[in-house]
Amino acid sequence: MTVRLAILGAGAVGQAVAQEAESHGHIVTGFADSGSAVTDPEGIDVGAALERKDAEGQVGSAEQAAALEAPADAVVEATPTTLGAAEPGYSHAVRALERDKHVVLANKGPVAERYEELQEHVTASGGDLRFEATVAGAVPVLATIEGLQPTRVDRVSGILNGTANFVLTRMAAEGLGYEHVLAEAQDLGVAEADPSADVDGTDAALKCAILANVLDGGGWSLSDVDVQGIRDVPGSALDLAAEDGRAVRLVGEVGPDGPRVGPRLVPADGPLAVSGTRNAVVIETKAAGRLSLSGRGAGGPETASAVFADLARLPR
Amino acid sequence: MTVRLAILGAGAVGQAVAQEAESHGHIVTGFADSGSAVTDPEGIDVGAALERKDAEGQVGSAEQAAALEAPADAVVEATPTTLGAAEPGYSHAVRALERDKHVVLANKGPVAERYEELQEHVTASGGDLRFEATVAGAVPVLATIEGLQPTRVDRVSGILNGTANFVLTRMAAEGLGYEHVLAEAQDLGVAEADPSADVDGTDAALKCAILANVLDGGGWSLSDVDVQGIRDVPGSALDLAAEDGRAVRLVGEVGPDGPRVGPRLVPADGPLAVSGTRNAVVIETKAAGRLSLSGRGAGGPETASAVFADLARLPR
Repeated sequence: MTVRLAILGAGAVGQAVAQEAESHGHIVTGFADSGSAVTDPEGIDVGAALERKDAEGQVGSAEQAAALEAPADAVVEATPTTLGAAEPGYSHAVRALERDKHVVLANKGPVAERYEELQEHVTASGGDLRFEATVAGAVPVLATIEGLQPTRVDRVSGILNGTANFVLTRMAAEGLGYEHVLAEAQDLGVAEADPSADVDGTDAALKCAILANVLDGGGWSLSDVDVQGIRDVPGSALDLAAEDGRAVRLVGEVGPDGPRVGPRLVPADGPLAVSGTRNAVVIETKAAGRLSLSGRGAGGPETASAVFADLARLPR
Repeated sequence: MTVRLAILGAGAVGQAVAQEAESHGHIVTGFADSGSAVTDPEGIDVGAALERKDAEGQVGSAEQAAALEAPADAVVEATPTTLGAAEPGYSHAVRALERDKHVVLANKGPVAERYEELQEHVTASGGDLRFEATVAGAVPVLATIEGLQPTRVDRVSGILNGTANFVLTRMAAEGLGYEHVLAEAQDLGVAEADPSADVDGTDAALKCAILANVLDGGGWSLSDVDVQGIRDVPGSALDLAAEDGRAVRLVGEVGPDGPRVGPRLVPADGPLAVSGTRNAVVIETKAAGRLSLSGRGAGGPETASAVFADLARLPR
């Protein structure tokens, strides 16, 4: 099915969606970065827009808002995640739904922070809302929960932040301290200059809020998540865990007690003991036992693959 | 979405679908075993049908064919898998599609043996065809491939037969011979009295034919799969593998060289080294790297959960 896409956001994910759209049979009719837009009802020239972005710092010469008005079946919201009001992502999604367009989010903010408000707009809209890309990148966690029925899932546990997992994996494997490994991760581009959202657990907590909203039909936001990060995990704890056949991982959990994130001991040969930047999720169900999924949790093309999976699942 | 279901087949899967249908919001309007049927446009009494099956050996007093004529939106085909012509499953599916009903298969035969013929009927029908339950039970392999787009998947490898995996796991863990462990598996109900479909690789090969058909849009059947079973795997091979950090597993693979099944060495800490009757699948993709999924590959409620996931994914 060909979908006409308006892509909001020209970071790694927005760019990957724009670049791969044609090979998936879709047409990009609008593409916006933070300060400009390019639109064409027949399909923009994605390559030219990205070259212009490189050369001049913006994808086009139209006002940014023009992308939302482009003739499109679906809006891909891939602007940076923001907390609290989750703007401008939230308003982008609402405006698209008000125009009966489908919305596919790569931006975690709207579904982590304002889930119920957003669902009210979905109910009133002819468009659907999907957000596979917001949890565990390429790993099809939300589609799997949808198939199982959210009310039949007892618990979801996961390694939801690749940067924190990389740091813990390297600390354990090399016997190095937190600060040393973090600096290495920053050199490799695995951690950002300000790593706090990853190592303090905020990013994993946003994903847990989203999962909790999906399982419970809403009711959760970041501030409801009990969060502990990995800054204070001593190397000695990793050694003790290893001696006991376990590993320390930053685990996000959503179960009967609500969402929480913190360092946990997991079996070293179990599904959550993934290495490096990989993400993993265990879904415990009433009828089907325990399902494990793992894959790449970040990266432009990987996250874009989740956006395309959502586009393929839109009602025909 | 409430779906009116006609369920053909009253084995473990058909019974589990019938028993759980109401809790998923569906209505069972027809239910057939191999020699009888019960139908009611308002919804049959599933409990009474299963009691009658226990007491008298049949679910109802109508002709078996009546179930296909019951007013239903979807037909769940859960009769035993047969090879070659794949009857009666194939004809059940065709007759349902001719009546513009959706078809959800738990029976592997029609999609392993007569995929293209069946797809021609899908093309001409107002109904859809789904068959998640035919590969790896509760594990959402086909929905994940669907989301990734079949043409973007480079290779699928999997542990697709729980009985063979149980035998290999126990042989390695206990240092016991094949015949001994097989007898144990038969005592536990993990292996059937005639275990040949499992230990000779036929069941895994059927699943590989289905996966190959999904990836290539048809063209494969059981006879095209290169198959080797596990009867001749000596205990010494398992010991050698373990010394090298590996395990022997019956692996089904679908890649550029087509489908094949045989004993393979896999890393002992890798995603295919699952234990016992668990199934596992690794999907290698162009854009998203390697995705790993694992879960229960057999059992009535587990396989039924894949049927319900398919029902949830039918077009509204």
